[in-house]
Amino acid sequence: MQSTDHYRTAFTSYLDNKILISEPRNLYEPIAYILNLGGKRLRPVLTLMATEIFDVDYKRALDAALAIEVFHNFSLVHDDIMDAAPLRRGKATVHQKWDVNTAILSGDAMLITAYQLFENYAPDTFRDLAKLFSTTALQVCEGQQYDIDFETRDDVTLPEYMMMVQYKTAVLVAAALKMGAIIAAASEQEQNRIYAFGLNLGIAFQLQDDYLDAFGDPKTFGKQVGGDIIENKKTVLYLNVHKDGNDKQKKELLDLYSIQPKNPSIKIDSVKDLFLDSGAAERTQIAISDYTEKAFAILETMDISEDKKKVLRGFGKQLMARKV
Amino acid sequence: MQSTDHYRTAFTSYLDNKILISEPRNLYEPIAYILNLGGKRLRPVLTLMATEIFDVDYKRALDAALAIEVFHNFSLVHDDIMDAAPLRRGKATVHQKWDVNTAILSGDAMLITAYQLFENYAPDTFRDLAKLFSTTALQVCEGQQYDIDFETRDDVTLPEYMMMVQYKTAVLVAAALKMGAIIAAASEQEQNRIYAFGLNLGIAFQLQDDYLDAFGDPKTFGKQVGGDIIENKKTVLYLNVHKDGNDKQKKELLDLYSIQPKNPSIKIDSVKDLFLDSGAAERTQIAISDYTEKAFAILETMDISEDKKKVLRGFGKQLMARKV
Repeated sequence: MQSTDHYRTAFTSYLDNKILISEPRNLYEPIAYILNLGGKRLRPVLTLMATEIFDVDYKRALDAALAIEVFHNFSLVHDDIMDAAPLRRGKATVHQKWDVNTAILSGDAMLITAYQLFENYAPDTFRDLAKLFSTTALQVCEGQQYDIDFETRDDVTLPEYMMMVQYKTAVLVAAALKMGAIIAAASEQEQNRIYAFGLNLGIAFQLQDDYLDAFGDPKTFGKQVGGDIIENKKTVLYLNVHKDGNDKQKKELLDLYSIQPKNPSIKIDSVKDLFLDSGAAERTQIAISDYTEKAFAILETMDISEDKKKVLRGFGKQLMARKV
Repeated sequence: MQSTDHYRTAFTSYLDNKILISEPRNLYEPIAYILNLGGKRLRPVLTLMATEIFDVDYKRALDAALAIEVFHNFSLVHDDIMDAAPLRRGKATVHQKWDVNTAILSGDAMLITAYQLFENYAPDTFRDLAKLFSTTALQVCEGQQYDIDFETRDDVTLPEYMMMVQYKTAVLVAAALKMGAIIAAASEQEQNRIYAFGLNLGIAFQLQDDYLDAFGDPKTFGKQVGGDIIENKKTVLYLNVHKDGNDKQKKELLDLYSIQPKNPSIKIDSVKDLFLDSGAAERTQIAISDYTEKAFAILETMDISEDKKKVLRGFGKQLMARKV
């Protein structure tokens, strides 16, 4: 096994060599642009790591890892259109730098390219990877649709939100790991276990994202703290107030979520106080820790050496200790 | 072999049973809507027909035929956004009936669904189908990008336009036929021949489309005659004037293509006169007939019975004799 950094470096140099700009340039330049914006490369690193967990050279998983990263970036390009987001990783989004039509079409080409990256695998592996990929990709679309639907609904429940988080974020983390297991020809049981490990870790990861958006340290948090509050986003913190807060707290939150002040700092502080006083912040932290622990418990049942478990556990802990 | 109508009916009833609206409804309703708008079902019929040409029951090809039709409709949904088209087959386009975001996301889900439809085939067949599908789908995206690029370019050449037509339209017709050959396990040579037959027929089909847009009979032509002229579209007729017309004709055409009169009928008549006087109309008809003849010549080399050739020839002739 190598370090996370080693996998990331190997992946990035593979990506650099593989993503070439061909004709028509207006289709392929935006693809190279978004893929070169960087990011944590979390998902492809997981694919490489999982392959070595099951004792196969990570190099055999580079194409699948790239497929996962290309798909992830495809979803960012199309989601950014839908959110009318001007920035992605501090740079102009594709639809902003080019236009909406270019972002639609280049995104489409990325989705197809992701499938093509499985073509170098043997027929059975190819089919297993493509099937898992299709199921996952469709769930990500469904998660995105639920996310959009929730924006205009006032009666979203916490279980519905958890399902949305699972589809929109966690299944791709889980699939990234399972792809490594498929390439390494691990048993179906081990494939399912590493998938379940990733699913729970992915849910914890997204809840952590919601939590840090409100309570992250402005010095280390990459984005503006309170962004979700400014946009009146119904995150896990918000829904926890609605589930377990008292009537006064619920009403106060509804009132605060109906205003959009020019200077949002008072609103942010008031909402954060509500999150804390209602117990929503604590319950969210408990949920994050529950999902993380569940992931680690699944890890324990796996039929791999203690060394390998330590690697996955270390990765999980590092992920959950992040401040960004 | 069955009649074209029989294949179309069988396909439509298969589609009706297979396309169900699941949750989230806002993702899946637009998919059912666009697939139920009808259309000639040309491409899926070709897949079913090709399967029986190579002596295998067309029923085995229904999923692949549906994949082709779902992909074709995916491309219509996304192209209609890019063209800001309000109508498709006389009904509101998806982005018009819902909104742009819905049309993007439902389109994405359709592209993934198309891949899933290959999953019931054996691993080798699955891989062959998915590979051909990916190559074709990417070419269709490239064709669409060229089409967009050409709108703002004044120096598009006829060979460039022919390449765009090949990518945007003909490769999908060719792939639809080849998929039938793959499912029937025809030899690689026969697969390539039926692909080449489809490619040439597909090009002829699109040139015919350009021709009918100007010279179709208003009584039988489904769309407004002269639509391309109103929109100043550089079709094969336009490019033929630029290639072989005299200086006066070229200048006159440029002038006419720089105006957008409220009542376009005089402009349409003048442009049509130019198409006729410059020989562009005749050269286009010759090209249509050349590509059709080339398709039929390839058909002659195929290792199938005379009866089967007759079916494909009949289909080609029917297609090229159409008035809509």
